[in-house]
Amino acid sequence: MERILPFRFDEKERVFWLLDQRKLPLEEIWVPVRTAKEMAEAIRAMVVRGAPAIGVSAAYGMVLAHLSGEDPEEADRLLRQSRPTAVNLFYALDRMRPHWGNLAGSLEEAQAIWREVEETERAISLHGAKVLRGQVLTHCNTGPLATGGYGTALGAIVEAHRQGRVSHVWVDETRPYLQGARLTAYELKKAGVPATLIADNMAGFLMAQGRVDAVIVGVDRMALNGDFANKIGTYTLAVLAHHHGIPFYAALPLSSVDPSLESGQGIPIEERSPEEVLELRGVRLAPLGVAAYHPAFDITPHRYLTGIITEKGILYPPFDEALRDALGIS
Amino acid sequence: MERILPFRFDEKERVFWLLDQRKLPLEEIWVPVRTAKEMAEAIRAMVVRGAPAIGVSAAYGMVLAHLSGEDPEEADRLLRQSRPTAVNLFYALDRMRPHWGNLAGSLEEAQAIWREVEETERAISLHGAKVLRGQVLTHCNTGPLATGGYGTALGAIVEAHRQGRVSHVWVDETRPYLQGARLTAYELKKAGVPATLIADNMAGFLMAQGRVDAVIVGVDRMALNGDFANKIGTYTLAVLAHHHGIPFYAALPLSSVDPSLESGQGIPIEERSPEEVLELRGVRLAPLGVAAYHPAFDITPHRYLTGIITEKGILYPPFDEALRDALGIS
Repeated sequence: MERILPFRFDEKERVFWLLDQRKLPLEEIWVPVRTAKEMAEAIRAMVVRGAPAIGVSAAYGMVLAHLSGEDPEEADRLLRQSRPTAVNLFYALDRMRPHWGNLAGSLEEAQAIWREVEETERAISLHGAKVLRGQVLTHCNTGPLATGGYGTALGAIVEAHRQGRVSHVWVDETRPYLQGARLTAYELKKAGVPATLIADNMAGFLMAQGRVDAVIVGVDRMALNGDFANKIGTYTLAVLAHHHGIPFYAALPLSSVDPSLESGQGIPIEERSPEEVLELRGVRLAPLGVAAYHPAFDITPHRYLTGIITEKGILYPPFDEALRDALGIS
Repeated sequence: MERILPFRFDEKERVFWLLDQRKLPLEEIWVPVRTAKEMAEAIRAMVVRGAPAIGVSAAYGMVLAHLSGEDPEEADRLLRQSRPTAVNLFYALDRMRPHWGNLAGSLEEAQAIWREVEETERAISLHGAKVLRGQVLTHCNTGPLATGGYGTALGAIVEAHRQGRVSHVWVDETRPYLQGARLTAYELKKAGVPATLIADNMAGFLMAQGRVDAVIVGVDRMALNGDFANKIGTYTLAVLAHHHGIPFYAALPLSSVDPSLESGQGIPIEERSPEEVLELRGVRLAPLGVAAYHPAFDITPHRYLTGIITEKGILYPPFDEALRDALGIS
């Protein structure tokens, strides 16, 4: 089994290298990032994506700000504006703030954030593996490429397969950006887990045929009541799983919970360019002059969740109490 | 408003011209078809698609068999094997059988089948327009390109817009073949109806936001109890509409009902090449060595239907009685 990491830091050369996820799986191109400004642009353009990976990248963005002599206030502002939905971004930048102007401290904190991602995801994978069995369906990409660690939902799937519990994975291609087709299928292949790619609109039919035993997805941001934002299409899967009586899990580090939000209503939804729906890798799909809508995320209310898989174990309803307990909030 | 037809017959030149729907909307290429064998191949390859348009094309295929001196038994067999799900294909070929070996009779019958498609769809459009309002969501392509007439579900949408009842259409792109992005968006643009393209996985989120007032789809084959096969993704939409309390309609000519089937369980589901999921217009989407699943259709049980829109009016539950009445079957 091979774990693919989305980035590496070369301290001597003062370069943070990003594996360009827009080009995968056909090309493996490493992009050098030397400033916080370049990092913000790379995050916005989705060279790196996935909430935990964005958090680690942003932390190293602040290290680069120091190395390249950028104003930390301005660097922090640019990074915060790069992707508005992922809470890990803000969490990582908050942790970097006390180390502004201190290279050793800044570097240590960024490394700690990365190491914690790995430890947290190892725990998430082990907890999540306990509830998965048979054929599992997942959406978008939640593996090492999305996190820099073992992955959240995909970490649990790979671990459950290693334990002989999961036999096969249905991978939603995840339009419009095709993170499932391009990244999850790639990671599962490298991990040696049997997987079959489907168009997103096939999930319901598979469920009706009894060919899906569980659904597990990642989370971009969760509110204190368990409502959560994740890749567009997650809500549709939640409704389908609910309708067919199939367990539906979200896997996330507790750092993806936003304690300032009581419910999902306050989570901002990033709208991306309609061009990403109208075109695919430079191939025009629709006639010129046609409008398109492209919300990058949707909100899934907590009532569709069977359980929330975290590094501290699996949380069950009532989620507001379980999440407050896990976060140590009264 | 412009109606685009998918084919035209040149009797003098003995050629049936098909507008290549695989190339639309970027290129308008007309493909000449001179034999039934070529027609069967064009249907299989989806140069022409949509149940009613396949029926008309198959009927002209039998005219071409006569003109080109093919054995009618063999021509009929090849055409029947071209697409196994669409019942209109068998209906049209059954009607052509008495005219084998008779050019005038054969041509007259094919023309009659085409004319009846137009008349039937005019009636469907007028009935369907009565129940649509506000923002309507549709899947796949059910317009003139799919039928040779006015369209079924799309005919009703365009008529409802003409009457000022429908303000806006959400168009599912309809992976993997993108009939929505390529054909429906194209037809709605030509018809002057405001439309917005979405990825299939966005429908649930739009419904949760209250931005969909009705869903209307076409039908490839319907059983006597109202269960029906249609483009993959239809079942998912049916479950979503049901869950959100949104009216869900199927529009079809009664010739798409298969009176030999009591329920949807007997409808064969065409599985197409996984390559159509793995690639898009020659662009590889997934890594090499990844498996994909590609059912072209799914089955939607009748209990998800609010009403069935036919040329004889709108049928309501219990659908088995209403369909038998409409078909004159006791």
